[in-house]
Order: sequence, then structure tokens, then C-alpha cells
Amino acid sequence: MPYRAPITDFRFIFDHVSDFSQVQGTERFGDASDDMVDAILEGAGRICEEVLEPLRRTGDMQGAVLENGVVRMPEGFKQAFGELAEGGWIALSAAQEYGGMGLPITMTTALNEMMASTTMGLGLCTILTQGQIEALEHHASDPIRETYLPKLISGEWTGTMNLTEPQAGSDVGALKTRAEPNEDGSYAITGQKIFITFGDHDMAENVCHLVLARLPGAPGGTRGISLFMVPKLIPDDAGNTGVANALKVVSLEEKMGIHSSPTAVMQYDGATGWLVGEENKGMAAMFTMMNNARLAVGVQGVGCAEGAYQQSLAYAQEREQMGRIIDHADVRRMLLTMKAETFVARAIAVNCAVAIDMQTATGEAEWKARAALLTPIAKAFATDIGCEVASIGIQVHGGMGFIEETGAAQFLRDARITPIYEGTNGIQAADLVGRKMMDGGEAAFRLLDEIEAHAESVRSQMPELAEPVWQASETLREAVEWLVAQSDMPTRLAGSVPFLRAFARVLGGHYHLRAALAEQGEGARTKLARFYIMRLLPEHAALLTHAMAGAGDLFALDEDEMAA
Amino acid sequence: MPYRAPITDFRFIFDHVSDFSQVQGTERFGDASDDMVDAILEGAGRICEEVLEPLRRTGDMQGAVLENGVVRMPEGFKQAFGELAEGGWIALSAAQEYGGMGLPITMTTALNEMMASTTMGLGLCTILTQGQIEALEHHASDPIRETYLPKLISGEWTGTMNLTEPQAGSDVGALKTRAEPNEDGSYAITGQKIFITFGDHDMAENVCHLVLARLPGAPGGTRGISLFMVPKLIPDDAGNTGVANALKVVSLEEKMGIHSSPTAVMQYDGATGWLVGEENKGMAAMFTMMNNARLAVGVQGVGCAEGAYQQSLAYAQEREQMGRIIDHADVRRMLLTMKAETFVARAIAVNCAVAIDMQTATGEAEWKARAALLTPIAKAFATDIGCEVASIGIQVHGGMGFIEETGAAQFLRDARITPIYEGTNGIQAADLVGRKMMDGGEAAFRLLDEIEAHAESVRSQMPELAEPVWQASETLREAVEWLVAQSDMPTRLAGSVPFLRAFARVLGGHYHLRAALAEQGEGARTKLARFYIMRLLPEHAALLTHAMAGAGDLFALDEDEMAA
Repeated sequence: MPYRAPITDFRFIFDHVSDFSQVQGTERFGDASDDMVDAILEGAGRICEEVLEPLRRTGDMQGAVLENGVVRMPEGFKQAFGELAEGGWIALSAAQEYGGMGLPITMTTALNEMMASTTMGLGLCTILTQGQIEALEHHASDPIRETYLPKLISGEWTGTMNLTEPQAGSDVGALKTRAEPNEDGSYAITGQKIFITFGDHDMAENVCHLVLARLPGAPGGTRGISLFMVPKLIPDDAGNTGVANALKVVSLEEKMGIHSSPTAVMQYDGATGWLVGEENKGMAAMFTMMNNARLAVGVQGVGCAEGAYQQSLAYAQEREQMGRIIDHADVRRMLLTMKAETFVARAIAVNCAVAIDMQTATGEAEWKARAALLTPIAKAFATDIGCEVASIGIQVHGGMGFIEETGAAQFLRDARITPIYEGTNGIQAADLVGRKMMDGGEAAFRLLDEIEAHAESVRSQMPELAEPVWQASETLREAVEWLVAQSDMPTRLAGSVPFLRAFARVLGGHYHLRAALAEQGEGARTKLARFYIMRLLPEHAALLTHAMAGAGDLFALDEDEMAA
Repeated sequence: MPYRAPITDFRFIFDHVSDFSQVQGTERFGDASDDMVDAILEGAGRICEEVLEPLRRTGDMQGAVLENGVVRMPEGFKQAFGELAEGGWIALSAAQEYGGMGLPITMTTALNEMMASTTMGLGLCTILTQGQIEALEHHASDPIRETYLPKLISGEWTGTMNLTEPQAGSDVGALKTRAEPNEDGSYAITGQKIFITFGDHDMAENVCHLVLARLPGAPGGTRGISLFMVPKLIPDDAGNTGVANALKVVSLEEKMGIHSSPTAVMQYDGATGWLVGEENKGMAAMFTMMNNARLAVGVQGVGCAEGAYQQSLAYAQEREQMGRIIDHADVRRMLLTMKAETFVARAIAVNCAVAIDMQTATGEAEWKARAALLTPIAKAFATDIGCEVASIGIQVHGGMGFIEETGAAQFLRDARITPIYEGTNGIQAADLVGRKMMDGGEAAFRLLDEIEAHAESVRSQMPELAEPVWQASETLREAVEWLVAQSDMPTRLAGSVPFLRAFARVLGGHYHLRAALAEQGEGARTKLARFYIMRLLPEHAALLTHAMAGAGDLFALDEDEMAA
């Protein structure tokens, strides 16, 4: 069945399950009128349905290939990327000053999800380019901005993010790539980077690498890292691509999924680069890029879930085994789980995007804190759900789900990277119970206050839905109170992953309740809310028990006992 | 890190977490002395460690290939299969009369797990051959037994199971393959079968297909199905392989995993076959084969989990990111979850095998009922856990987990078929809440009585472990009482999958408690039991809420609403 972009659901979440109308009410995003929003959603939906979806399986089968030192993309990708660029889809949220549309991140979030449902591999190229644009907008000097931003925004050039080295993954501070000053103010970059997504390709005329490296004499760890722009082809004074830089793709990884996204080992041999931001402040600049990238990756999880759901629903309607399988209770349970979870993941992601936009538009600390709180939840929960829903999708297909031709397996193979990259979900959970709770839980409590106030306001109207949400929020509140009282970090970290999931479970109850309320009367959203609240929300209690179990028993077994 | 066969854990579960000593005490299995059991475990462990493990990745990369109508196996497989055959490992539990060792199914279960940890694809060939041997022992005429059993048991020939057709998967009764009587008492078989595991290969001289087909005028549905032996090469009167039969491999499926297991589309064009068992009683004969195959597939889940755990533990001990990652609380949580769940899945499988052996040895109805109750739980829970643990294993590896070279992804790709074949886990759960509860819950209550009696007997000794197990068992008991009171099947089925998982959760608590008790003093097993009982067991409550939610809300949304 062909993919249908879920624009009705986006619009519904924008209008009823988030504060997007507040974003539209700001001066910064005043252009994002209802008509504009509809046009963007419809246009993005159309290009994903018509141009990208036909490439999903081709991209998986052919994959990106390294030939004679350059990467060749699968058939049709260059043209599709050209259409994305021409339509202005690469950088919806980039500043208008350099050719962007200046639209809310919320709009980009919707686009990113739809790209992930269709060709997740290609979507990575635009996500990374978006991230690079943002980093340059915030941190680069004027000459760099003027040279690179128009080309990145137009899609003539694309961007990458070079953090990881073999010994430096989650521990970015362990990186060793060196930057030696040249006489002309540029730097010579030397080192090897791994896991470089779209480190090379043939869809655009230049690839611009943002590379983390150490200056001579820089402090150890993350405080001695600087950020450099290192283009594949060095622009001449007119900004046109000129001579080749001293960098190359050594190899591409053979991966479980996202075969259309080339994952490169990059070698820099005294390549020419230019400092972006201040010396030794590279991590701060990179974090600008990473936070939105985390949301974008979360949304890839939603996209995989949506794609898997649509395909599974269509299959369940067609496939007959003792009647159509959609009429079997357990198949219904699987499909409704997929649908209810996808809604939660999407609603969390949109609410996170709205908070980022409100932070951008108002600069208010409360919105900043809300965005900071929701980002790790959006990233980790939505990517876990992406894998889980894709796996349920395989199950709905029975034996056919294991056959690659069907396409069901690809959603899981593609989704499986999302809980890992842009900070593993363990890192996200650590961020949530660590940095994001440094405020003593204030941002979390404020959100729980809203959830409970909402539940109370609808209690008389829909008591059987409102009451469990209120109760779950109270249980979560107790866990947050317990958590912020723990000064021992291993104790917090020991239950961080179940805590994050429980938080998402409660948010899910809240968003489903808002959806049910908006509907007025017993319609599809109320029925789905009941399914979620009665069947999936109860999971939060066991998760919070786990979250508060402490670290003692985790370290009780020694390594010999673990290996026995 | 090389795989190390978990023979200590098997021996511990045999001795302390199951009634295997009762099996050893029967006349039927009196040969299975402690020394013999140790020798078998060690021998099986050695061949898996030394011969099979090196083939895991080769088999995945090269896969089985169809060339000029015959299937060529990956490098090294023919020789490895030859070593298995020579060592007598193909048919440990087959009757001694035809050359088998007559050992308990419990021993075969241990072997099957170790094969799944190393080369799951090859393990399928022996599992199917074991199943065919069993079906022939129970249902075939003397001439067929005499011709086929010695060759199958020696590994000179192998066996397959031909049920599925494009329109007949879970609904076996929909099959259309025809069997027309020949004048000499044989039958001409015509039809197409799909998903035929090891439908052809080059490791043995003959492939013997057990094919379900309909005789002329047979009733519709499952009551009109007969079983036929249809060999690739027709044996001559001396039992040697003679002329080629009228059957062929049309194609092999391109699958997500188990690439070394050829999955064939088989075409029978008037192929010569011989009736096995009575006319129209083919399903009964096939069920003999399927029940043990279900346990064997469950055990494949355990094998994938064990393999993934061992590899992840080794990686976590080596990999440094802000210190060795095994010292991070969340990595510990992941590893202990893997270990605790693998133990539960293995203990359920062994207890199921012991019940089958006791049924075989004593013929007692209680053992038969116990085996029948545990089979769907062993199959479904262990295969779900196989996938979940393999996925956690990828996560422990971080970015390296997504790179195929590491091998972590293969465990998940291989494991992902196990919740589907030999009856999807939805079918298993339906079997549990349907057929296996037709006794009014008697077998379940008897098991819960044992669990609670055990928990009560150790309550004073280890109250913080015994009490939650007792409580969980009581909660499960209430759910069983509720379930057997529901005459509406959709109501039972609506919560069947969460019910099965909750049942396994409670069994897990019981087995961990038995393990802790056996240890005498606070050792590794007590610590692991505490981890499981405090962190994972609580999940049962939400699962049982889900299990008892009824079918109403599953059918509340119509299909347009599901697609909206």
C-alpha cells in the first residue's frame, strides 16, 4: 500500500495537543499562518508520497557504494535530492537572510518524520545539513556564514558532523584529531573520524564537514575541543567550489539498515579547515547542532513507526487466515498498540519542537527548560517505539514479515540505529536524570502540574480516562521527588532508562486525554485514548518501581559472577 | 570473544530448578546417569564451541544459494553437518531401535540451544530432522520406518515439514495440495509449498519431505488432510537413494536473517509419496512433530539470547568510554536484564522438556497437562526474549552494534523469525488461553499451587524474595480464575499475549527463587534473583490488567478510523 502522509494527525496535534498556536502568535513566527502551515504539510506530504517513497526499497537493496574513492548513491537519489532542494525543503527553518524560509522547527519536525517513513537514509542528509546550518548561524564568522549558508540552504552543498573516533564515542572528550594553525589563519586538520553519515555522496557538488579537533596545547577532555569547517572542495574567493581538500573516504560500513545512508570512515591528512566559534568551545557549538538533531532522530523513530503501521494495517485488511486477520482480536491489539504508541511519540516530538520554537521566539527560561526536559524523552522514547512498532509490524505480517521483499523488516533494520546515534538512549536517560534535574525537578514538576490540572478539569466529563492519568502523574511526581533527593549519581542512573520511559508513558496519557477531549463525543480518538490508558499506561508503575530500585544490586555481581 | 557453552547453568537448572532427577529415576530414561548427562553436555558444548561457532558469520554472509535447481550451502557447513552426524548429535532422543540414543528430550533441548547460539541456521536442519523422526516413530508403517529412520538418525538423510501454502499459513486447513492414489499403493502429490526450511541442500544425500495434502473427496478444513512421505530421491528396495522424484525447489526467499537456512518454495508435480498414518489424520501426526518443534524453536530464542549476552558482556568489559562501560550503571542494568531473562527463558524451556520426558516415561495425565501448558509459554516467551535480549545486546555495543562485522546485529536478525514460525506467538497465546484452559484452569492452578507452596516454604528464610513471588502468583491466579470464567473467546483472546507474558514473569520469579534457595547463602544466583524479582517481576501486574481488559475496545474503532 502506498504511504499516506499523516497530515491530518499533525494538524490535529498542532491545534489540540500542543501549544503550536502560541508559536503562530509570536512575532518571530507570525508568517506561519494556518494556510501556510497547511500548504507546507501538504507539500511535504506530497513530495514524500510521490518522490521519496518509491526509493525506500531501492535504496535498501542497492545501498550507497564506495567506488574509486567516491560514494555513489542508489538510483534515483540524486534526482530526488534535487527535487527536495528545488522545493526549498532542505532548510525550512533556516534564516531568511541566507535564503531559508524561517519557519518553526515544528514544521521541519513534521517533514523529518515523513522523510523517515519513506527514505530514512536520505532524510539523514537533510537532518545533518539542517544541523550544520544552525551551528553556522549561531557560531560561525560572517565570511564563513556568507560562503556556506546560501549553498547549504539551497542544497547545492550538504553538511556532516564529525565527532566520533574509534576511541571516542559517547566519550567525545577522548578525541585525538589535531588542528595545527596555518600561516593564513586557516588550520591543518589531521586525524581519522568514524561513523560519518553522508561523509561523501554524488547528490550535491560539495560536502562540508564540521570537524571536532584539538588545537596545540589545548586542555584535555571536552574543554579542549574546537570546531572546524573542512570542505571537501575548497571554495575560491567567489564562493565556487575549487580544489580538492586533503581528505578522503577510507571505507563505508556494512550496516544492519539505512543502506542508502553512506556511513564513512573519514581520513583528514592536513586538510584545510577554518575555526567555527571560539577556540576550545567546540563542544558548545556542537551541542547547538546536537540538540535539534536529537529531536530529529526521535522523529525518525516516529516515521519508522508510522510507515510500519500503515503497511501492517493494509496487510491485515487484505490477508485472509480464518477470515481477514484484522478481525482477530490479537491482530487488533497489535495494530492499536502501534497506532496508540505512534501517536504518543509524535505528540511528544511536536511538543518538544513547539517548546524549542517558543524558546527561540520568546527567549523565556521556562520554554527553554521545557525544551531541555522534553528533548531526551522525545529522542529516547520515540526511537524505542520506532523499533518496537516496527517489530510488531513484522509480527502482523507473519512469515511474510521476515521476507525482505515485503518491506516490513526494513522498518526495523532502519529504525534500530535510532536508539544509538545522536547519543544513545542510555545517554539520553542520563541527561534526563542528571542535567535536566539539576533544577531540583522544577521543569518536571511544572509539566506535571499542567498534566494534573488538565486531568482535574476534565475529570467530571470523562472520569474513567482522566482519573488514571492523574494518578499516574502523581506516581511519577513521587518518583521525581525521590530522584532529585538522591545525591548519589549511580543511584539516579541505575533507574534512568525505566524512569524516562515512565515519564513518556505519563505524557502519553496526557496527550491521549487532550486528544479525546478535543474530539467532543465518543469518536476514534477517545476510543484510542481508552485503549492506551487502560492497557499501556499501567506499565508506568512497574517502570517507576524499577527506576527507584537503586544501584546496589546492579553492582552486587562481580564480573566473574556475570560471566558464570 | 569465543562462545562458551553454558553447561554449568544447564546442569544447575537440571539439578535445582527442575524435576530432571525424576526423569533420571524413570525406567525409560534410566541410562541418563549423571555421568552420561555431563558427558553429553560437554560433548555438545565442545562441538558447538569448536565446529559450529566459526560458521556463524560465514553462514550469514554467504547464505544458502540456489544454483541450477539445487541449493549450495555456505563454506564449511557440509563438513560441520558431517561431524554432527558422526558424533550422533542429530538424533540424541531418537529410539535406540533404529540407531538413536534414546536420551531425554531435555538433553536435545540443551543441544538445540547451544546450536542456536552458534549457527542457528544449521540447527534448523537438525530440529526438523528430529521432528520428522518423531513423527515417523509414532505414525509411520513399519516399511517406512525401516527405510527412513536409520538414514535420518545417522544424518545420511534429512527431513522437512511441508505445511504452508500461500493461502494457508496459520490457517493450515486452507491448504490445496492434492494426493492422488497410484496403482501401487503410493500417491501422486501435486501442489506448491512455501517457507520450506532446508527444502534442499548439499549436506546429505537425500531430503525427505513430510507433506500435508488432500486425498480425493477428503472433507474440507483440517479434517481432510493427510500426511505423506515424499523423498527427493526415491529409495530402491535396498533402501539406497535411487531416481529423482518429481519435485523441485522453485526459489529461495531473501530473508532478514538465518541466511544459512535455505527457505524454499517447493513445487510437487505428481511426485511419488507414501501415506504416513491414517487417511485424513495428517494434522494429528503433524502435531506430534509440531509440539516438540515449538519447544525447539523456543530454545532457539534462548540460544540467541545467550549468544548475544556473552558477546555483549565481553564487549562491555573491553570497551572504554569514561572508564570501562561495564562500570556504568545503565550498562550493568542492560547486562543483568539480559542474564536474568535468559535464565528465565532457559528454565521454562528445561521445565517444559522435563514434563515431556516425564509424560513419555510415565504416561501420567498430570505430566501431559504440564507439558501442554508449558509448551506455548516456552515457545512464545523465550522467542520474545531472544529478540529483546539480542536488541539490548546491540544497544550495549553502541554504534558498533549496528555494524554487521561486529555480529551483534545478526543475533537480532536471526532471532526475529522465532516469534513467527512454528505457530506465531499470537497462536501460542491463543493456544494457552483456549485449548490449554479447557481443563478449567486445572493444570495452571496446580502449577501455581507448587509455586506458592515453594514460596511459603522459603518465606522465613528469604522473605524479600519469596513474598513478591507469592503475591505475583496470587495475582496470576485471580487472572486465571477470571479467564476460565469467560465463555466469550474474543474476550479471552484480547488479552492472551499479555497473559502469556505475565505467566512467564511469574514462572521466572519462581525459578529465580529456586535458584537462590539452592545456592545456600548470598551468591551470584541470589543476587540475580533479587535483580529480577525487584525490577522485572513487577511488570506482571500491568500485563494482567491488560490481559483482563476484554475485547470491547479492540473492536471499537472501525477500519476507517484505524486508517485515519
